[in-house]
Amino acid sequence: MSFIDRLRARWHTADSLLCVGLDPDPARLPERFANDEDALFAFCRDIADATAGFACAFKPQIAYFAAHDGGESALQRLIAHLNAIHPDIPVILDGKRGDIGSTAAQYAVEAFDRFGADAVTLNPYMGFDSAEPFLQRDGRGAIFLCHTSNPGARDFQELMIDGAPLYQHVARTIAEKWNGAGNCALVVGATFPEELKVIRGIVGDMPLLIPGVGAQGGDVAAVVKNGKTADGTGLVINSSRGILYASSGEDFAEAAADAARELRDDINRWR
Amino acid sequence: MSFIDRLRARWHTADSLLCVGLDPDPARLPERFANDEDALFAFCRDIADATAGFACAFKPQIAYFAAHDGGESALQRLIAHLNAIHPDIPVILDGKRGDIGSTAAQYAVEAFDRFGADAVTLNPYMGFDSAEPFLQRDGRGAIFLCHTSNPGARDFQELMIDGAPLYQHVARTIAEKWNGAGNCALVVGATFPEELKVIRGIVGDMPLLIPGVGAQGGDVAAVVKNGKTADGTGLVINSSRGILYASSGEDFAEAAADAARELRDDINRWR
Repeated sequence: MSFIDRLRARWHTADSLLCVGLDPDPARLPERFANDEDALFAFCRDIADATAGFACAFKPQIAYFAAHDGGESALQRLIAHLNAIHPDIPVILDGKRGDIGSTAAQYAVEAFDRFGADAVTLNPYMGFDSAEPFLQRDGRGAIFLCHTSNPGARDFQELMIDGAPLYQHVARTIAEKWNGAGNCALVVGATFPEELKVIRGIVGDMPLLIPGVGAQGGDVAAVVKNGKTADGTGLVINSSRGILYASSGEDFAEAAADAARELRDDINRWR
Repeated sequence: MSFIDRLRARWHTADSLLCVGLDPDPARLPERFANDEDALFAFCRDIADATAGFACAFKPQIAYFAAHDGGESALQRLIAHLNAIHPDIPVILDGKRGDIGSTAAQYAVEAFDRFGADAVTLNPYMGFDSAEPFLQRDGRGAIFLCHTSNPGARDFQELMIDGAPLYQHVARTIAEKWNGAGNCALVVGATFPEELKVIRGIVGDMPLLIPGVGAQGGDVAAVVKNGKTADGTGLVINSSRGILYASSGEDFAEAAADAARELRDDINRWR
């Protein structure tokens, strides 16, 4: 089953649009991991196992692993664990890759073959041939930045072209030209709910990955109302820090589960 | 000495604008590396040592390492070797990273602290706060995609905004707003020499990293004439495949050195 089909199935069986982001920052880990040499793996595994029941997807952020020697081994074992123990929950590798075709093919190997992710986030700036090696991978997902959650999103993504901002051209191009295999999705920041509404209008029922609730200040009600599809799904609403660091004590996993359940329920109130 | 100052010094002392790209593809390595478990490192080291006299910079492409288990160790040891044996030649890590500020800070650790690169390539799509953690690193270089070398460069980079294409807005924004510390450079593909001329006019004497000669078809004469600064420098003209795979036999290192010297000399004919 393809990434997109697995995601759709999971939205319904788990009754959840929540994505648990796995961004392990050594400076913020619970005390019990202070002397654990395998802390990146062990912490993320514990968080994932505690929150799985409330998640439609997991999203490890590769930068938090790549900043450390041994990080790739931790990431590889983490995704293997997720695939083995939580086979119904798709894994999105957040890497925002993008390069010329021959190099992009190497990044596709990195994400899909080496790390075993089901989908990867990509930057569209370099255009179609930079996306093609990902789009050609049967069953895998390609999730392109459209309108991001950060303040700098305004710098280029909102520049006006023929009466419409760049991010709308990106959304339209991907929906109309790049999505022949039906394996595309877009990243749209929770901090820009009006833009989210416009993007939903452009892309039909394409899944949208939504970072920016919680620490970045995005409003859950506005995201769900403006981003959901007619059947009340279509969204992969990510929370990382609000779940990962809900407690730094011995109860960190229970606290993460509570935070995940609360956010899932809050999302569901508006569906 | 900063990345940009070291680059300027090297242009003059080596009389070279050539950057040797280190993109090791296991399928194309010389026969002698067929059974070498450390082939990524050993091949790139041999190529670098053979071509150093003709190079103003080295540019390892991280995707070619990240596609393999152990690739990060090879890359780390390669850059350590380059810094130890060729301390006058700056190292550009080609990663085209770009993410929200907190994540970008992790990528800066990856490139500068873990791998020891002097500069890193970055994608500007997410705007200023995605660039800031790199710009704040004293002495390191931040090299942003502007107009890339691939066919897909036309998809978004050439969209017209207020009478000028997006890539010119990117060039202007970086030159005028992001370059306060004087540590920025831009990527401009050799396959778009007219656009290179316009970008040179916008950014003054900012260094431009030029991929796309050789395998991608860019014309050296047009690149140098359109891209050089008044003193005949300003360019970091990359060649990867044309040097790396000049021979697959026992003479691969000599053949690489010959290819590098020829390209350096060809570049210098037009300065």
